[in-house]
Amino acid sequence: MTAKKKGPLDGIVVVDLTRVLAGPFSTMMLADMGAEVIKVENPDGGDDSRTFLPMVSERSAYFMSVNRGKKSVALNLKDENDRRRFEALLARADVLVENFRGGTMEKLGYGWEELHPRYPKLIYAAVSGFGHTGPYAHKAAYDMVVQAMGGVMSITGHPGGKPTRVGVSIGDITAGLFLTSGITSALYHRAMTGESQKIDVAMLDCQVAILENAIAQFVATGQSPGPLGDRHGSIAPFGVFHASDGHLVIAAGNDALFAALAKALHAPQLKDDPRFATNEVRVKHVTQLTAELNHLLASHTKAEWIKRIDAAGVPCGPINNIRDVMQDPQIRARNMIITTDDPVIGRIEMPGNPVKMSAFDDPPTRHDAPELDEDRKDVLGDLA
Amino acid sequence: MTAKKKGPLDGIVVVDLTRVLAGPFSTMMLADMGAEVIKVENPDGGDDSRTFLPMVSERSAYFMSVNRGKKSVALNLKDENDRRRFEALLARADVLVENFRGGTMEKLGYGWEELHPRYPKLIYAAVSGFGHTGPYAHKAAYDMVVQAMGGVMSITGHPGGKPTRVGVSIGDITAGLFLTSGITSALYHRAMTGESQKIDVAMLDCQVAILENAIAQFVATGQSPGPLGDRHGSIAPFGVFHASDGHLVIAAGNDALFAALAKALHAPQLKDDPRFATNEVRVKHVTQLTAELNHLLASHTKAEWIKRIDAAGVPCGPINNIRDVMQDPQIRARNMIITTDDPVIGRIEMPGNPVKMSAFDDPPTRHDAPELDEDRKDVLGDLA
Repeated sequence: MTAKKKGPLDGIVVVDLTRVLAGPFSTMMLADMGAEVIKVENPDGGDDSRTFLPMVSERSAYFMSVNRGKKSVALNLKDENDRRRFEALLARADVLVENFRGGTMEKLGYGWEELHPRYPKLIYAAVSGFGHTGPYAHKAAYDMVVQAMGGVMSITGHPGGKPTRVGVSIGDITAGLFLTSGITSALYHRAMTGESQKIDVAMLDCQVAILENAIAQFVATGQSPGPLGDRHGSIAPFGVFHASDGHLVIAAGNDALFAALAKALHAPQLKDDPRFATNEVRVKHVTQLTAELNHLLASHTKAEWIKRIDAAGVPCGPINNIRDVMQDPQIRARNMIITTDDPVIGRIEMPGNPVKMSAFDDPPTRHDAPELDEDRKDVLGDLA
Repeated sequence: MTAKKKGPLDGIVVVDLTRVLAGPFSTMMLADMGAEVIKVENPDGGDDSRTFLPMVSERSAYFMSVNRGKKSVALNLKDENDRRRFEALLARADVLVENFRGGTMEKLGYGWEELHPRYPKLIYAAVSGFGHTGPYAHKAAYDMVVQAMGGVMSITGHPGGKPTRVGVSIGDITAGLFLTSGITSALYHRAMTGESQKIDVAMLDCQVAILENAIAQFVATGQSPGPLGDRHGSIAPFGVFHASDGHLVIAAGNDALFAALAKALHAPQLKDDPRFATNEVRVKHVTQLTAELNHLLASHTKAEWIKRIDAAGVPCGPINNIRDVMQDPQIRARNMIITTDDPVIGRIEMPGNPVKMSAFDDPPTRHDAPELDEDRKDVLGDLA
């Protein structure tokens, strides 16, 4: 058997101007898929997130995890010599990724309209807060702003409670994910036709794109849905319940699963109750249903119930904290906690690549994140 | 100018066995990118989500939005004649997508090992709760379960408060997004090498993949972070604040933005305060910083502050509800609220495609979601 390629993007060169999270998350995915990602950073400290807490031996654990497997070159895009170096990189790149606010690249003389004639095979991928068109095109945003403006915060949290941010930066991450799909599909299109193009992804747009049920609710009823607390708006039972010693989640997404749940709880009467006969009526009577289930669940521990409900084939599980996640046997078996070997601080753990592809290896150890300008000579050669 | 192609995946045929959300979200993206998506549903009612509330004229608004632009054929994969029809579809397909629990396709005789020799160009894409390997491989999951087991719920919500589900189904949606990147990069790889492969994405894995800062916190400190409430764990100020008439979000992600914020608030002393001099110390003194900012913000309305802070170039914004989102001028200008024309209920609004690509149109009206088996003759031809 011959050695596997590194990934589907083996041979692809990505010039990466992105900072913080949305762009770097996307280029991390490209690196995980085998692309050579050259992070071009400002010489004055580089990517802001190099200083983000928490630090491990004076390195940001946050930066290290999102920038594994990339190379770094420090270039000042307002300096003539550095611009020449940058343009030499573009000449051999397949993809340029940037996450400046709209208009910044044009000011630098590197907008799509300028670059496309000079580098006709280059795919230009932009991710910004609001995108490159529309009335907010020149404004900046961060995750927090698009979580708020895009509606996700209005449906997260408990009714009557304080505004609640999603605990992960889904404003950035979903934008990075959509961007990655755009880049890989543009590479496919280029392979088929020779044509390159510009991809323009806005974090705000991506928040709208994931609203699914909330927009459906608004369209159907004319009312904005409120915060959903600990359950789903269109499926029941589907949420957090109380065993004798704490919380567990149960998600019985259809009538067959609800019947199986009733059996596992030794409460076959539930499925014969007209209030609970179909998902539609269960959603209408969700308060009563939740009370009935919590009453039944109070008799045993969450571990006992998870065992029984699981045996009945009904999706359920514990609410894990991060330590639990890091120790979960399935997550470990799936190689979802990988390591890099940092020359200064040694082995450090971080999330792995969830796209498991049969043609490629999924190595448990990856190349560490670069020091600022670490790969200058390797990348720039004589131009260094 | 010649007519643009529909998208980068023009010409690609996708056979889609997926139901509910994770798989259908991915195949919706493929359809948006120009692929022909043939939804193969069980004849006994089809996709469960056809009955999910809310309904508009007896059609699920939820189903309609996630299945726009697809075709539908009803086939019973346990019936010999229907299996022949299904296999005829596979013979002309580029991609098969399924989101059954692990092992189901093998029981049907359609696992990757069986299909690959018969359909050597077919890319097999699976998304499931826990993936096809590891101790939980044969268990089912829904969004709620992986939000809980994957750690996201443990960091969402307010300290000491009730468990909080993210208001959108990020368990499903992030899995659909990672899967889409896998499919498009596998199509690229196939275009370059001729090789097809299996992609195996687990919803639980994807929750781990988006934990970013939470795992960094655990790695650096050995402690599981708790719920973050309304702010970010590593950046300050970055959260919800109080104006005279309600909430707004402000996200000053670096020292320059913090200085600009201080100026916009007419409080230049803030940036000279040693407790607030750098992001690192601002995170340490976030409680005091928040109190100072709320004190200053209490003097004007949120609209007034958003105008001023925005003018200073500091990311900020309102907490929009779904109605606000649907009316936002940027979201409208970006074509992020599109419509389909349903033959029964007429024009219905839904989220658009956030991946804006310069080589392709981004039509404001799309083909509606199919009735069960609506495209039988078109898709199966003489085999119908």
